[in-house]
Amino acid sequence: MGSKETDKMNGVDSGHSAVPLDSDTEARVEEFRRCGHQMVDFIAEYYRDLARHKYPVLPSVEMGYLTKTEPKHAPQQPCSYEDLMREVDTKILPGVTHWQHPRFFGYFPASSSFPAMLGDMLSMAFNTIGFSWAAAPAATELETVVMDWLAAACDLPSVFVSSGSGGGVIQQTASDSMLVVIMAARHRAVAQTGETDTRQFVAYASDQAHSSIIKEAKCAGVQVRSIKTSREHSYALQPTDLIAQMRKDTQDGLIPIFVCGTIGTTSTTAVDPIQSLAESVRCEFAGLPVWLHVDAAYAGTAALVAECRHHFKGLELWDSFNFNPHKMMMISFDFSALYVQERSALIDLFSVGEECLRNKASESGQVIDYRKWQVPLGRRFRALKLWFAFKLMGTEGLQRHVRRSFALAERFERWVAADDRFDMPTPRLFGLVCLRLKGQPNDAQCALLDGVNGCGFFLVSTKVDDQVVIRVAVGSPQCEAQDIDELWRAFQREADKLVGPSK
Amino acid sequence: MGSKETDKMNGVDSGHSAVPLDSDTEARVEEFRRCGHQMVDFIAEYYRDLARHKYPVLPSVEMGYLTKTEPKHAPQQPCSYEDLMREVDTKILPGVTHWQHPRFFGYFPASSSFPAMLGDMLSMAFNTIGFSWAAAPAATELETVVMDWLAAACDLPSVFVSSGSGGGVIQQTASDSMLVVIMAARHRAVAQTGETDTRQFVAYASDQAHSSIIKEAKCAGVQVRSIKTSREHSYALQPTDLIAQMRKDTQDGLIPIFVCGTIGTTSTTAVDPIQSLAESVRCEFAGLPVWLHVDAAYAGTAALVAECRHHFKGLELWDSFNFNPHKMMMISFDFSALYVQERSALIDLFSVGEECLRNKASESGQVIDYRKWQVPLGRRFRALKLWFAFKLMGTEGLQRHVRRSFALAERFERWVAADDRFDMPTPRLFGLVCLRLKGQPNDAQCALLDGVNGCGFFLVSTKVDDQVVIRVAVGSPQCEAQDIDELWRAFQREADKLVGPSK
Repeated sequence: MGSKETDKMNGVDSGHSAVPLDSDTEARVEEFRRCGHQMVDFIAEYYRDLARHKYPVLPSVEMGYLTKTEPKHAPQQPCSYEDLMREVDTKILPGVTHWQHPRFFGYFPASSSFPAMLGDMLSMAFNTIGFSWAAAPAATELETVVMDWLAAACDLPSVFVSSGSGGGVIQQTASDSMLVVIMAARHRAVAQTGETDTRQFVAYASDQAHSSIIKEAKCAGVQVRSIKTSREHSYALQPTDLIAQMRKDTQDGLIPIFVCGTIGTTSTTAVDPIQSLAESVRCEFAGLPVWLHVDAAYAGTAALVAECRHHFKGLELWDSFNFNPHKMMMISFDFSALYVQERSALIDLFSVGEECLRNKASESGQVIDYRKWQVPLGRRFRALKLWFAFKLMGTEGLQRHVRRSFALAERFERWVAADDRFDMPTPRLFGLVCLRLKGQPNDAQCALLDGVNGCGFFLVSTKVDDQVVIRVAVGSPQCEAQDIDELWRAFQREADKLVGPSK
Repeated sequence: MGSKETDKMNGVDSGHSAVPLDSDTEARVEEFRRCGHQMVDFIAEYYRDLARHKYPVLPSVEMGYLTKTEPKHAPQQPCSYEDLMREVDTKILPGVTHWQHPRFFGYFPASSSFPAMLGDMLSMAFNTIGFSWAAAPAATELETVVMDWLAAACDLPSVFVSSGSGGGVIQQTASDSMLVVIMAARHRAVAQTGETDTRQFVAYASDQAHSSIIKEAKCAGVQVRSIKTSREHSYALQPTDLIAQMRKDTQDGLIPIFVCGTIGTTSTTAVDPIQSLAESVRCEFAGLPVWLHVDAAYAGTAALVAECRHHFKGLELWDSFNFNPHKMMMISFDFSALYVQERSALIDLFSVGEECLRNKASESGQVIDYRKWQVPLGRRFRALKLWFAFKLMGTEGLQRHVRRSFALAERFERWVAADDRFDMPTPRLFGLVCLRLKGQPNDAQCALLDGVNGCGFFLVSTKVDDQVVIRVAVGSPQCEAQDIDELWRAFQREADKLVGPSK
């Protein structure tokens, strides 16, 4: 190869036309184009079919339907895309619980959107691993930009934006966010108290808080106290109860290091009184390194709309705040937004040297290396999902979806309130309606749930004060008013069977 | 609505034609189809452009290029897909480090493939959260199937497949896998020794092991010992050195609980002697609950080909094994495969109750709930990526890619070996070649690295025995023989400038 051509090829911007595409690459690219178009069509048809109720929301496959029938070895030779998609039809689709179905009211919604999907496709194409700024400048900087946008759109306190000492970071799930902050709290507590036996440390949350606090406290090796809540206070954590337990523990020689408040609990979307909780702890335990964390995994998205922002009053008193745009904000799973007031608390814990990762940008101290804000080293370019969503739907589009979901939940709530056979143990605050048959035992509630699910819906139950309560979680972008009305008719029919018609 | 129609709509398989598509949904679906096709075309052109060297592998943006210029607020109103893609061109592409570029030889490869991308698109469409079998039967069962396929394709010991007491699970990254097993080791050690102060526990690895062991041991609250290695033994951990340190620690009253062996270290792909390490520990410390874990994040994929399997001999003596198909196996990031001999060790640690998640399948004990094998609760349908890759490329296609990458690395190794100005401090075993200018100080090695990177390549250096060593990590499916030859010419030119021509 002549030196002229060599120079040309090494010139980073002049090399384009110099390199011919070999036939293998050309064939691979064209095959992807062909199959990719078909996959887009498949996805479009899938969402159309969901809207038309082609699929049952719950699959009817038996346990082991694939593990007992599939061969034990992968094929040696490739098959065609068409053959594989036939297997998707016969083996995968029958076993899918359709989370995007208009009649999926179980758990909390994991809502997707076409804009987020398009952003995810682009992320998939780049396939960068953004462990440092240098490894992925666009991924790093766009993450800072969109996390600040998200904070602004939700009117979060300015302590959580990147221009100060805090900032936002995308974690995988709310459990990961919880682990990060509970470990950061433990790390800070060791430094401030000199106590190294982590069993002396205690974390606090209401008995309605998400199970992740128990799981992640166990991982972090610290104790947890679940503070009892009651229907009288709508299952919200009461400052007096929290303080009493913290006092008792400090008298016993233990060290409170972490309080998790929840805005929108999993069972019933209870909202802890954020402002008074923080004020009480700060006032009573000023000398202790107590990390205050708000988990709003589900309900955080509600902060997009002004009429819900009173729930978030006092947030600036908390060290960290987490919510999952992959739940109600149509940012496809996974995308957990974690905001902290002091990013140094994470960096102190997670900074570990690695010679291969050294680079001038990191050493300048001018850039963010998000690997120092999380447990793993690698990270995907997830900022694109949020960027595409903001750009292609606008903040107003996201707000519209939240308001629409809450209005559909309210529609259902009105049906329930008008029927004297039903009781709503907690008020509806966001997109979740909790209900049960008045004065009936738990068995009857389970029979009601099974009956309604048998009509082509998917709901789950929870237990509060040992009573089974049925949860109707509205939030799928595919859900329409007629789905809500049909759901109510199913409830009525099943209630007729169990307790007779309403008065 | 009449009762006939109501019945029809609630009949899960007869409702399809009964529900008309509203015009909003129709419009959204068709807009996705239009933009999705364009995105597929964009991705196809992107890979074509990479092969043609249209983009420099490293971006030339300044620190803050987006954070300093983007508005502080998200747009209120949406823009068109076309306008957004123009922003991708002007704002994102200039800041992308092109990990899929044919001349990306930095870190380890994070290789993507069109089949894995198609699988990822399907996963994105379903957007299920597979925390239990019931929440996503297809995702759960396909994960079991393909993880067993992967074990068989890599000829892993049968103790790691799902039919016994072990099994495989997809984690996000190797760091997550490391955290999972180190915490499981700690949990088991507490149960077996009665010692609850985790600072008494010690984890061991060579000084060449990945930094994740230091990061995750810190998270788990246990001590770590880095055992020194030497060039004499190709930077492999020596059983005598490990045993000596473990003896010293037990004499000091500490409790060894975890040993991490590495197959293919990050710096130089050193291979620890897996069989003799395990035999030594099992023989010397039979009474201690020492968890043995093999980290083969990069090199594990080499087990796909018979000629590399001798490195993995003795793996059945280890409690757990991890490798990342997202590195060399073209399964797009993220996909870390973790295999354990005793799945109960994970389930004991990570099982936490949650009323909403209760279901008959889980309570039957007949199904796997993978959330009990990991830190987070939620999980994506990542099994589709591996399934698509196995199906559309065949095991032989994956093997071909591994052999091709190693052959390209060998091609480069031969060039280096024939030039007396260069030294290779460690033998090439897989796709990584390590080299330095013979007898030159570290500054000269850095100058060489900068010079070569200035020619349109991306490589990083490491340090072994305080000597800077340049790493050439081959493995991009886009890399061709001519890229290797051009890389070598760049090395020669830069060496000419620094130390004069070769003899």
